[in-house]
Amino acid sequence: MDFERTMQLLNEKKYNIIKSELGNYQTADIAEFIEELEEKQALVFFRLLPKEIASEVFSYLSVDRQAEISALANEKELANIVADLYFDDKVDYLEEMPAYVVKKILRNTSEAERKLINQFLAYPENSAGSLMTIEFVDIKKELTVSEVLDKIRKTGPNKETIYTCYVTDSWRHLLGTISLKELVLADVNTKIEDIMHTGPIYVNTHDDQEDIADTFKKYDLLAIPVVDNENRLVGIITIDDIVDVIEEENTEDFYKMAAVAPSDEEYINTGVLALSRKRIIWLLVLMISATFTGYIIKSFESTLSSVIALSAFIPMLMNTGGNAGSQASAIVIRSIVLGELSFKDIFKVFWKELRISLLVGSVLGFLNFIRIFFLERYSFPIALTVSATMLFTVVIAKVIGGMLPIIAKKLRLDPAIMSTPIISTIVDAVTLIIYFYFAMWFLKISV
Amino acid sequence: MDFERTMQLLNEKKYNIIKSELGNYQTADIAEFIEELEEKQALVFFRLLPKEIASEVFSYLSVDRQAEISALANEKELANIVADLYFDDKVDYLEEMPAYVVKKILRNTSEAERKLINQFLAYPENSAGSLMTIEFVDIKKELTVSEVLDKIRKTGPNKETIYTCYVTDSWRHLLGTISLKELVLADVNTKIEDIMHTGPIYVNTHDDQEDIADTFKKYDLLAIPVVDNENRLVGIITIDDIVDVIEEENTEDFYKMAAVAPSDEEYINTGVLALSRKRIIWLLVLMISATFTGYIIKSFESTLSSVIALSAFIPMLMNTGGNAGSQASAIVIRSIVLGELSFKDIFKVFWKELRISLLVGSVLGFLNFIRIFFLERYSFPIALTVSATMLFTVVIAKVIGGMLPIIAKKLRLDPAIMSTPIISTIVDAVTLIIYFYFAMWFLKISV
Repeated sequence: MDFERTMQLLNEKKYNIIKSELGNYQTADIAEFIEELEEKQALVFFRLLPKEIASEVFSYLSVDRQAEISALANEKELANIVADLYFDDKVDYLEEMPAYVVKKILRNTSEAERKLINQFLAYPENSAGSLMTIEFVDIKKELTVSEVLDKIRKTGPNKETIYTCYVTDSWRHLLGTISLKELVLADVNTKIEDIMHTGPIYVNTHDDQEDIADTFKKYDLLAIPVVDNENRLVGIITIDDIVDVIEEENTEDFYKMAAVAPSDEEYINTGVLALSRKRIIWLLVLMISATFTGYIIKSFESTLSSVIALSAFIPMLMNTGGNAGSQASAIVIRSIVLGELSFKDIFKVFWKELRISLLVGSVLGFLNFIRIFFLERYSFPIALTVSATMLFTVVIAKVIGGMLPIIAKKLRLDPAIMSTPIISTIVDAVTLIIYFYFAMWFLKISV
Repeated sequence: MDFERTMQLLNEKKYNIIKSELGNYQTADIAEFIEELEEKQALVFFRLLPKEIASEVFSYLSVDRQAEISALANEKELANIVADLYFDDKVDYLEEMPAYVVKKILRNTSEAERKLINQFLAYPENSAGSLMTIEFVDIKKELTVSEVLDKIRKTGPNKETIYTCYVTDSWRHLLGTISLKELVLADVNTKIEDIMHTGPIYVNTHDDQEDIADTFKKYDLLAIPVVDNENRLVGIITIDDIVDVIEEENTEDFYKMAAVAPSDEEYINTGVLALSRKRIIWLLVLMISATFTGYIIKSFESTLSSVIALSAFIPMLMNTGGNAGSQASAIVIRSIVLGELSFKDIFKVFWKELRISLLVGSVLGFLNFIRIFFLERYSFPIALTVSATMLFTVVIAKVIGGMLPIIAKKLRLDPAIMSTPIISTIVDAVTLIIYFYFAMWFLKISV
């Protein structure tokens, strides 16, 4: 889609040309174009869209733009847009709109749909219920393939996906599934019960979205049925929403790893106060823990003042320790999230991190000895103190970094909370204690 | 699938019962079960699988298990498995197998397929070519809907997805697409050219997998066509592979954020030497940079030795600075990756981070002043030095942390390299310089 050309046509009010060209564009591109327009122009352009694609374009728009268009549009226009939204998009949209827009919409909604909307709004955030939609094809097992294909032809245009059909009994219990591929390939007179897959994979309305995403990944699904507590089929979740969930969960882990409270909002649209609040809590916690590191230094003040040279190596030792620990924790956290590691592997991780750290620590310690003793010509005890601390720090950092996320997982905590900043803080303290004890030992300093 | 029960049946050699029950299980679950068996048992169990699902189960197995089964299976068995693999899985598999297994397989492969395999093996890693498969439905625009449905019925069983059909001309140029949903819903006598979507979204064989994943996310696709440099349709990529790509790219970003060289291998299956190599390079680089931080301390040694109390606050200041910077960089990196931020937003980010850091830094500085002056009863100049350094450090850390990833992106570098360890190292040095200058100023110490 040529944004510049369309913009020019819009400015020149050549609406007919725009209309004739709209058919060639992807709805996602049209939405992107609308995002770049000014408020009033956005509505003008949106009104040019043919009815068939207006709702789809609308569902791609940002919440802010949706709100602006909803505020400017008249009641009938709004009713049309909302009527054609898929139910999951509709619920998401209503959740975000200001009260007066919601009111405007609900006036044009049937009693039954209003009830359903309220029911969906009540599902907990991040649950299957909050992700699912109701536009799926449900069929009875007694039907033949040709009868089902007829049903799809009649009801299909309004379904979010027709690629899997769900077989239910009269109490709406889920009995099995059959894919459109199988329907198309099967003999038209076959009965559904003879070819359907029994024992289908499904989730409960209250299941967590992260687990659902794992199920999609494991079974390479395009959609999954959702049942309520009475095992009745109430909705489906489609892969496009799961892709968003995967990115959301990853973002959350990234934030945790950097000690930021997670957020659903886009950075650029979030206010300074809200962003500050999400950051200051962890900074405070970590600052207080780092204060203890300061107390360690203070309690060894006499060691430090008698060999002031020791202080010059503290940043390097603390940094390397922190980095070594965060490397191990990041790898282990990620492996747990991807399902490659679990608690039963704890000794394997311990043994692996021990060997890695002995190897890496020895190399770093050795290089430091060369630099400090031969190149910078410090005394032998100082070089030895720094090198030995380096080795021990790397070993302890990597073992702690590797163990803590697994232990957190076992304690049903999120492994990602054992992130870089926490590991660094722990390792810092350990590093300093080792350093000063080695210093007293090798340098024969008494406290 | 009840693993324990199946295991018992296997041990009791009740193969017929197992066979009769296999139909109720998901292929992904069967593969998971096979992973837990011993080598010989795995082959025994694998031989029980009906031919229709054997290849699918095989494609879900880990590379190690695939290699073991391939080594133990006879040539005919292996030929059967490989023949039914989708082409993308086949290429991935051949890429990983030892030479003698590959030889065993290629003996049973036609000349034409061998050529195609070699062509696919030549595509660069992480390119569209390395992800695509050749089992797609291609049709001519002159056909009617019913002719196409007939064609799908004939060739469909061997296609990875039949949910999108690709319309090509006689030179195999991609003209348009039509979904199975549209085919099923359309009148059977309609010509394809009248209902196909022209201007389809496609990628080139050499496009990077990260960009392709972004395209999937933007347009909510289930599959995307891949064309070669002459614009001929050569394959398609399906959403299940893209979900894997998304997780792979996220893992890479997690590793970069923790200063680990990225890797495709699972942690638990990677050797100690390989893991050490992936970690030591960055540790070395960061250790050397941290050495400079040490030089800063050394050059202010006289300041430090005249007021030794100053050293106790260094870890807290450095840690808080590093954490404040890594918070900003993680958020900005993630926003860039998700396409929410670009270079044009650089001033917005600057202004936002400046305000956040002034707010957060003031609070932290103020709390430190209270603690140091009132609670711990240090002198006023010392409390002022620490508090003022805290404020300035947080401001500089957040602004640097926010700016560097955007600048990296502009310079066509991966923003994720501006990760926690690098930001911390830069911020450490800046923090110390500020600290010592404030100390000299407020404490009237001359160097």
